Amino acid sequence: MDKAPWISYRPEIKVLDCTIRDGGLINNHCFDDRLIRAVYEANVAAGIDYMELGYKADKKIFAPGKFGEWKFCDEDTVRRVVDDNPTDLKLSFMADAERTDYHHDILPADQSVFDQVRVATYIHQIPTAIDMIKDAADKGYEVSANLMALSTVQDRELAEALELFCQTDVKTIVIVDSFGTFYSEQIQDYAKRYLKAVEGTDKQIGIHAHNNLQLAFANTIEAIICGVNRLDATFNGIGRGAGNCPLELLLSFLRNPKFHLRPILECIQKEFIPLRGEIEWGYIIPYMITAHFNRHPRSAIQLRDSKTPDDYVTFYDQVAGMED
Amino acid sequence: MDKAPWISYRPEIKVLDCTIRDGGLINNHCFDDRLIRAVYEANVAAGIDYMELGYKADKKIFAPGKFGEWKFCDEDTVRRVVDDNPTDLKLSFMADAERTDYHHDILPADQSVFDQVRVATYIHQIPTAIDMIKDAADKGYEVSANLMALSTVQDRELAEALELFCQTDVKTIVIVDSFGTFYSEQIQDYAKRYLKAVEGTDKQIGIHAHNNLQLAFANTIEAIICGVNRLDATFNGIGRGAGNCPLELLLSFLRNPKFHLRPILECIQKEFIPLRGEIEWGYIIPYMITAHFNRHPRSAIQLRDSKTPDDYVTFYDQVAGMED
Repeated sequence: MDKAPWISYRPEIKVLDCTIRDGGLINNHCFDDRLIRAVYEANVAAGIDYMELGYKADKKIFAPGKFGEWKFCDEDTVRRVVDDNPTDLKLSFMADAERTDYHHDILPADQSVFDQVRVATYIHQIPTAIDMIKDAADKGYEVSANLMALSTVQDRELAEALELFCQTDVKTIVIVDSFGTFYSEQIQDYAKRYLKAVEGTDKQIGIHAHNNLQLAFANTIEAIICGVNRLDATFNGIGRGAGNCPLELLLSFLRNPKFHLRPILECIQKEFIPLRGEIEWGYIIPYMITAHFNRHPRSAIQLRDSKTPDDYVTFYDQVAGMED
Repeated sequence: MDKAPWISYRPEIKVLDCTIRDGGLINNHCFDDRLIRAVYEANVAAGIDYMELGYKADKKIFAPGKFGEWKFCDEDTVRRVVDDNPTDLKLSFMADAERTDYHHDILPADQSVFDQVRVATYIHQIPTAIDMIKDAADKGYEVSANLMALSTVQDRELAEALELFCQTDVKTIVIVDSFGTFYSEQIQDYAKRYLKAVEGTDKQIGIHAHNNLQLAFANTIEAIICGVNRLDATFNGIGRGAGNCPLELLLSFLRNPKFHLRPILECIQKEFIPLRGEIEWGYIIPYMITAHFNRHPRSAIQLRDSKTPDDYVTFYDQVAGMED
């Protein structure tokens, strides 16, 4: 394996801030405009490449009254906060397979403030995802494919999915460690497989890591070393459950002079430290336990909302005893 | 590089719990007997190999009234909590070069409840450390050499230090990332150098990582992959500043059936969650900043004790502007 540059940097690397989208999974997508604007401005000042604002959820499935506006990312909602986005920062939303009325709700790109659509799919939804990718690409968006819950996908299924993605106009295929369960050697193995699949195309591989085992940053570095050039991160690691790769650590690691750490630290200080008093994210034992057993974090999230949020041993015994 | 075993395990690996020693740096070594006994019993139940209880500090330099008893680790203090330690768990203390009256304060091993002495040294104290190693080995202890602040040591100095250690009866030489500043590729590089230095001897290499960049666990794994067999960790990652490699994550990773995760989780739940309300440890921005600039965490610790513990931007500017 070739060494990654060490005191130099790789100009191909681009960073996506998914703070508002993944963080929205903690608070039902109810961030206020002030916070979103602060994150937006910090991203612009820090030289971040993409900012993901939320989902484009189907309002027939998800009643708007029950969720914050960033579950739907209506054009006027977004413009209220960022105007027409007269900056180099590209804006993204996530479109979940089978939860998005994509033909209807996703405007042509030239009428939208968004630049990128990230299609999120489970392995059994691939045909829908492929159609969503085509729809978004035809409408003029840059498109990313995020195959979720990778740690539950069999090798043969993955090979077929990667092959199908390669036949589309998708620009990025993202390695998604939804359960935060992978060690660096597994990330290395997946990175090699994903990179092999796109060899000879102009498609890029991305990484979206979760911090259940305190490895989100480490696994992102591992992916970088392998040649992955599209990196997801969030302010102070905010995100569902154990959270994501912390953007401040990632920028501290990347040496591209276009990135600036200071605006990120400033925004964390002003916005995210107070927010920590309201909502919880980051490494704690229950999320480590679900990752240890390769489970979705939802049972740990339920534990944290229960009357015994710190009864780790009972929870460990429960998860250990769960049938697949 | 050979792959480490993946679903199997490496029986040579031994784990040292330095909870009470490194955690003692937060609270002036003032843990009460009940907590220490709980950690001791959890270590025994979990199959941990070594437990480090504190320092053997020189009472002429450090007035006993100003520190907790675990700064000195008198034999009767230890026996009050663990009797004669009728278990397989080996007990360790750390002896700092130039801060330990080792000739006088370290009893012959056959009169002591301790099994291992960990000699901690900065690069300029190596001659003293070598004499301390000889003294402890002659008295019948297993001895470990911990060269601190490695990220400030030049290659040529390190080579000479390793050569000198190899001429002693030291059993383990520990890679110590005092400032929590190393990335996995650097750990890989150091692990190879340390392992090369002890090639052909029965000496082992150890790793003691700090979590300033959320890499303590990841770097410990990296060291394992390289062939490092002596691992430091602490309950819930407790330790000075950003803390250490969390023992619960390490046991979840190691597959040796002699180790048991459940007693560790139980002790964290009962002892360390309440303790988190009293003292602070773990990843926060100030510790990331000192690591980013390869500094000792002491300025970050001072910030946290000041009236503006969350003024990260001013702190960042200060550390960025410090002269070496």
